[in-house]
Amino acid sequence: MTRSMPGSRVLALVLAGVVAAGVAPAAQAPDPVQRIRASAQYAQASTFIEADYDRFVRELVALNEIPAPPFKEQARAKAYVEMLRDAGLSDVEIDAEGNAMGVRKGTATGGPMLAVLAHIDTVFPEGTDVKVKRQGTRLAAPGIGDNTRGIALMLSVIRALQAAKFQTTSDVLFVGNVGEEGEGDLRGVKYILRQGKYKDRIKQFIAIDGGEQGNITRGGVGSLRYRVTFKGPGGHSYGAFGLVNPAYAMGSAIARFSRITVPITPKTTFNVGAVRGGTSVNSIPAEVSMDIDMRSESCAELKKVNEAFLAIVQQAVDEENGVRSTREGKIAADPKLIGDRPCGETLPSAPIVQTTTAVVKAFGLTPNYSISSTDSNVAMNMGIPAVTIGRGGPGGRAHAPDEWTDVERKGSVEAVKVAMTVILAVAGVP
Amino acid sequence: MTRSMPGSRVLALVLAGVVAAGVAPAAQAPDPVQRIRASAQYAQASTFIEADYDRFVRELVALNEIPAPPFKEQARAKAYVEMLRDAGLSDVEIDAEGNAMGVRKGTATGGPMLAVLAHIDTVFPEGTDVKVKRQGTRLAAPGIGDNTRGIALMLSVIRALQAAKFQTTSDVLFVGNVGEEGEGDLRGVKYILRQGKYKDRIKQFIAIDGGEQGNITRGGVGSLRYRVTFKGPGGHSYGAFGLVNPAYAMGSAIARFSRITVPITPKTTFNVGAVRGGTSVNSIPAEVSMDIDMRSESCAELKKVNEAFLAIVQQAVDEENGVRSTREGKIAADPKLIGDRPCGETLPSAPIVQTTTAVVKAFGLTPNYSISSTDSNVAMNMGIPAVTIGRGGPGGRAHAPDEWTDVERKGSVEAVKVAMTVILAVAGVP
Repeated sequence: MTRSMPGSRVLALVLAGVVAAGVAPAAQAPDPVQRIRASAQYAQASTFIEADYDRFVRELVALNEIPAPPFKEQARAKAYVEMLRDAGLSDVEIDAEGNAMGVRKGTATGGPMLAVLAHIDTVFPEGTDVKVKRQGTRLAAPGIGDNTRGIALMLSVIRALQAAKFQTTSDVLFVGNVGEEGEGDLRGVKYILRQGKYKDRIKQFIAIDGGEQGNITRGGVGSLRYRVTFKGPGGHSYGAFGLVNPAYAMGSAIARFSRITVPITPKTTFNVGAVRGGTSVNSIPAEVSMDIDMRSESCAELKKVNEAFLAIVQQAVDEENGVRSTREGKIAADPKLIGDRPCGETLPSAPIVQTTTAVVKAFGLTPNYSISSTDSNVAMNMGIPAVTIGRGGPGGRAHAPDEWTDVERKGSVEAVKVAMTVILAVAGVP
Repeated sequence: MTRSMPGSRVLALVLAGVVAAGVAPAAQAPDPVQRIRASAQYAQASTFIEADYDRFVRELVALNEIPAPPFKEQARAKAYVEMLRDAGLSDVEIDAEGNAMGVRKGTATGGPMLAVLAHIDTVFPEGTDVKVKRQGTRLAAPGIGDNTRGIALMLSVIRALQAAKFQTTSDVLFVGNVGEEGEGDLRGVKYILRQGKYKDRIKQFIAIDGGEQGNITRGGVGSLRYRVTFKGPGGHSYGAFGLVNPAYAMGSAIARFSRITVPITPKTTFNVGAVRGGTSVNSIPAEVSMDIDMRSESCAELKKVNEAFLAIVQQAVDEENGVRSTREGKIAADPKLIGDRPCGETLPSAPIVQTTTAVVKAFGLTPNYSISSTDSNVAMNMGIPAVTIGRGGPGGRAHAPDEWTDVERKGSVEAVKVAMTVILAVAGVP
């Protein structure tokens, strides 16, 4: 694929169905990657990263020990925004949604912007013991990998760029964002891309939220989550026998839902994750509810499952209202959307994917493409070229209390260098 | 039917298959009813009941606003036992099961005893708003009819008997008992009749737990209750998609159960009263469960529904294990019996039914016999002559959040008089 002529680059983007605006000279991969790695600033930045290793580990531990449960990231955001300021960013602030952020100005400042996000929230509830346990270079604690390592790595990258006075073409917005996990429902990145002050300027997007550095997430698994409440008049199980029962409508909906068919590829899934309702064994419940999760690598398949699901809920309600008495009231279902992670894709041919691939290969790593659910979903869905890259590893047990990450020096230093190089290559170096 | 000779009375009881021991002169209906209503004490007691109306309503509201969820009746029992003491009973206490009770001694004290029970528990869980809403004489609140009205009525009866110094032949044990509803499984009355200090002396039994005063419950509907737990391996909704899901097995069981047919006569019913399980929207549940209630006026029909239900649970489990992957484990269901209300009957010819009928007719009301599930089931099953009588009305929506009862003065006063007269006639007046 020819990537040297701007004309053909734009054409490739149009063919890929991706918004082309703002793709800076950064996309001239792989040559720019070689040029970046051969530069004097790169040598300086690399030396800095090696020297910064101890501080990286110290900050990783310190940041992890500031709890950041869903919707309660304030303390960590406050600490993080000060670290962004110390690292030398400008326009440092916490926005209205709680995201900690700052800008590193490029030579074409004020124009198209690259946003680099690493989420500061964890899946763990308030009260979780987040103290880090060390065994040699193995650090164990809830959230230590996903994603405290990502935000610690981002700080080391910024400091290295500053130390080497490494100029980029476009402005780079660095964000420690809230609300990536669970019911956070991507609220941090949604705010930044849909409402935040830079929303019209962000034309490329990188999330630091993967495992080892060969991993490149270029597709966003879409998901829809509902809490469906079935309500009815309720009543005594014996005295009012014959009245409609919302548990029957829900049972029928679950049984029907369990029988739908979904493709194996593109991977598409559905789940009934929780049920609740009713007050006593001898009362017809007045209310029951269930929590539903549907996901797909394909926007079209997700839409199909969603439509099938909503139709099933209505059929189950109609059936129950048809076979039992509604003299005290009917069954009604209220499917409330409690999660909406937009689907999206950055095509393999997109310059941001090509550039990231070139960087990964330049470090002797094997690119491993995946489709996942990260902050990049929102960017992809809006047509903004986006990838999610690694935070370094090895590590494991993400979302479990015994989560761990290994900060062996050589691998850790390399992870920071890879991430820095991706950011430089995507933002462009004059 | 001749009822004046003790011999023939005993014969009738034996023919009825009911234990005859301890049936006191009380059973000489209908003449004793006329005698009671013509007495000077009756006139005094009636005048008292009319004057006591405002207090009755005040206590009904106050008692209802002390929550009494299943197994958490302590606060109400404590308040009620003090009210029994104030009303003038002796041997006032809360027994080991939590029943609030006291004795009103008869002239043949120490001999056969009449037990009068009104349950203090409600079906509503902790945290339910039990504040009473008034619209004229219409009081609405969870539990207001079933059975706060019953326990308030009992207090007014006791006070009237005391005020008129109305002597009975047998001792009368008045009980505000626990555990009538739901999972309480008749634990209060079971304790009193099977283990309590008066167990060998209680030879007649009245429960105050019906609607309007014409209603006489002389049959005990049998019921079987299960908590069925469905377990499986669990897993991530996306990563482990395709594994068996216990919510699907339960949904299928509910859908099948909702479609079984039962006879209208003898009345037979079934219910799914509560469901629960699962920890998060994006996890396949490891465990879900449901609470099931089945009842019948006929022991044979109850057996049939029970067998159909257990077969359905097994079919639903087998189906789920057949259509999804069991590589991490299978679905298994455990139907645990959580309620077993014995069937029983007091024959229409039994003196306690005849006496109650005579009282109801004496007040110009039409007796309406029914078979229900009340504290009387346990007595009937043990061969103790028992009826459940009304607490007064009109009212409705028992076990629903919008339950109501009407305390219009004339009807309310009459309800107390009817209950008092039944108790007097059954306990016997020298």
